[in-house]
Amino acid sequence: MEEIDIRPIGYVRSRIKERSPPHQFKELISHIEIRPELAQALDGIEKSSHIFIIFWLHKTEDRSVLRIHPRGDSDLPLTGVFATRSPARPNPIGLSIVQLLDRKDNVLEVKGLDAIDGTPVLDIKPYTAPRDSVGNPSGPRWRR
Amino acid sequence: MEEIDIRPIGYVRSRIKERSPPHQFKELISHIEIRPELAQALDGIEKSSHIFIIFWLHKTEDRSVLRIHPRGDSDLPLTGVFATRSPARPNPIGLSIVQLLDRKDNVLEVKGLDAIDGTPVLDIKPYTAPRDSVGNPSGPRWRR
Repeated sequence: MEEIDIRPIGYVRSRIKERSPPHQFKELISHIEIRPELAQALDGIEKSSHIFIIFWLHKTEDRSVLRIHPRGDSDLPLTGVFATRSPARPNPIGLSIVQLLDRKDNVLEVKGLDAIDGTPVLDIKPYTAPRDSVGNPSGPRWRR
Repeated sequence: MEEIDIRPIGYVRSRIKERSPPHQFKELISHIEIRPELAQALDGIEKSSHIFIIFWLHKTEDRSVLRIHPRGDSDLPLTGVFATRSPARPNPIGLSIVQLLDRKDNVLEVKGLDAIDGTPVLDIKPYTAPRDSVGNPSGPRWRR
């Protein structure tokens, strides 16, 4: 098996220091501080209005959970973690689309990132249409 | 620094065995074979029409590249890899949105996955609207 050798490219800087309900992140402005030696890898990103942030959910304790009740609601069907956005998953990787507000050297200012202060960031990619923008995705009833 | 300890959750099975131009993947049907002991983590995923696949670009050789000419076109401006979808990047993580056609036990059948046979898969997430579907993202002129 290949070695998956991943090192954070940077860290989230945010006023939210602990796990919090999703709505608290929706309008939140936070920063992503990229390692200074990687700053050039951001060149041109300021032309994108939206970017993907791929991060490491470093506070996840139990990676052996395979099924959960969505939103912790026992009325909702037991659902596989790959069919949810739960942080409990075999590889606790987070994925968010955020609005890019500003870039200064190695620091991005973003809106709507649901990651707490100190979260290691693994990768950043531009959000592009139509590739990333699916018009009418369908999903389970509980998500509506 | 935290240890980022990632193990593949499964592998891509595809008739495309070598790196190929993007258009060859657009209509391609391929399979993702999840480790059998993780099969339950897929329960309910069949209700989603589209899913994110996060994978490891295991053929990437140079992780020290910080800027590239998009599409290898020297007429396009040198651009930071975080502002592109180039496979050459500090952590060679791939991200694609695919159409989910079928699930049988631990195997997903998908359409449009731009990953070659044997690619390690790191995570799978449902694509949800409106969270993941940005109406009018803007980007650099070269992408139009």
